[in-house]
Amino acid sequence: MDMGEMQQVTAAVLLIGDEVLSGRTQDKNLQQIAQFLAPLGVNVVECRVVPDIETEIVDAVNTLRQKVDYLFTTGGIGPTHDDITADSIARAFGVGIDVRADALEIIEHWYEKTGTPLTETRKRMARIPDGASLIENPVTGAPGFQTGNVFTLAGVPKIARGMLEDIAHRIEGGAVTQSRSVKGEGLREGDIAVQLGELQIDYPDVSIGSYPYFLELQDGKLRRGTQLVVRSTDDGKLDEVITKITALVSELGHEPELA
Amino acid sequence: MDMGEMQQVTAAVLLIGDEVLSGRTQDKNLQQIAQFLAPLGVNVVECRVVPDIETEIVDAVNTLRQKVDYLFTTGGIGPTHDDITADSIARAFGVGIDVRADALEIIEHWYEKTGTPLTETRKRMARIPDGASLIENPVTGAPGFQTGNVFTLAGVPKIARGMLEDIAHRIEGGAVTQSRSVKGEGLREGDIAVQLGELQIDYPDVSIGSYPYFLELQDGKLRRGTQLVVRSTDDGKLDEVITKITALVSELGHEPELA
Repeated sequence: MDMGEMQQVTAAVLLIGDEVLSGRTQDKNLQQIAQFLAPLGVNVVECRVVPDIETEIVDAVNTLRQKVDYLFTTGGIGPTHDDITADSIARAFGVGIDVRADALEIIEHWYEKTGTPLTETRKRMARIPDGASLIENPVTGAPGFQTGNVFTLAGVPKIARGMLEDIAHRIEGGAVTQSRSVKGEGLREGDIAVQLGELQIDYPDVSIGSYPYFLELQDGKLRRGTQLVVRSTDDGKLDEVITKITALVSELGHEPELA
Repeated sequence: MDMGEMQQVTAAVLLIGDEVLSGRTQDKNLQQIAQFLAPLGVNVVECRVVPDIETEIVDAVNTLRQKVDYLFTTGGIGPTHDDITADSIARAFGVGIDVRADALEIIEHWYEKTGTPLTETRKRMARIPDGASLIENPVTGAPGFQTGNVFTLAGVPKIARGMLEDIAHRIEGGAVTQSRSVKGEGLREGDIAVQLGELQIDYPDVSIGSYPYFLELQDGKLRRGTQLVVRSTDDGKLDEVITKITALVSELGHEPELA
């Protein structure tokens, strides 16, 4: 199969929660979802973070689910008053929502095991938008759900990660984007910028990224260099470009380090 | 001054860069910008991450700068072909862009100090949208810039953090949102959800958030609990709510831990 002819399959991530916007919580879900999807041939092309406000969630869901092949939301599916994601998803799709028997059964079963009382509040976690299918939660039981092309996961990274295992089989991916990188210790972006720009023109289907880094040493001095990252669905072109960049880094007097 | 009467001042963050979306880079800028703005009385209410594509950047800049008081962008202001933020900002504002003498002078001065040749490519970093003011970069010299209510910073977190120091004096903040939290070790969200919901109704101006946590112990077991976070611009109400929540956690048989 000619990988170049395969369509790009795209995803977006919508992080729901005041705690990420306020800076209290460092998000880890975007990275783990992107790293999970890459080998399946799905590229994350946009991410948004919105507060726990229904209109904001509904607007973002409706914009993003039409823009990409798959949308992943995280956060807001617990039992408390600030957990409004399930209702917001139902509103976005214009469908009803209620406690559903299959979801309730899963939650009851988990709570029996741990001897936790199943309160009315906990039943809230069995509220699932009409027509959605459940996503297994191997960590704490209460399921996520899939509504059309939208996957709704928990916000706790460990639980979100567990739920992704029940999603892989639902995804139709495209060509897998491979990534390779060369590090040039001591290399400054400006030294190699012209050559990279020319290379990018020669290889329009390959993405060439240049990322300077600065490491603070114990004596307070900065050690700097540049990481050059090449991404493509075409292994052959990826090899060609990485070989050329490696040679460039050498010519400029730096030791290229492949990763 | 009655803090309740002060207007809420809002900000959005736009992270520009394929490397965050691909999962290669874990973003740190949203958190550090939010934590920098909070004591100034500015709340981050939305964040977006977009790839290095001009139309995507322009659309996001124009949507967000009209929605909030201040917009912060990070990434894409270096010397390489994938650094298209300055041009995108100029396009978003419908203004011209060119190498500017004051920016070039700063960059020349820095390169003289380090003995680095000032190539044509490096001059690219002196391209500033017409009418913008410069933002000092104490780490590597090449400045950021302010265009209207939009602050354009570097993507490298250390440099972005340095640039924020030249921004505080340009911000007119509102009431400062204070945050306090109580941790209930062993507390499950469902145990306290009803009471929190009622408290939220009694205190509509106070934001009450409930965040379960799961720590994996060495024996493989999970230690779980819930962090309750209260945020408000009103110190008195914040105290009242935190006192009530602390009492609730105690009543439920868990040791409340204030933070």
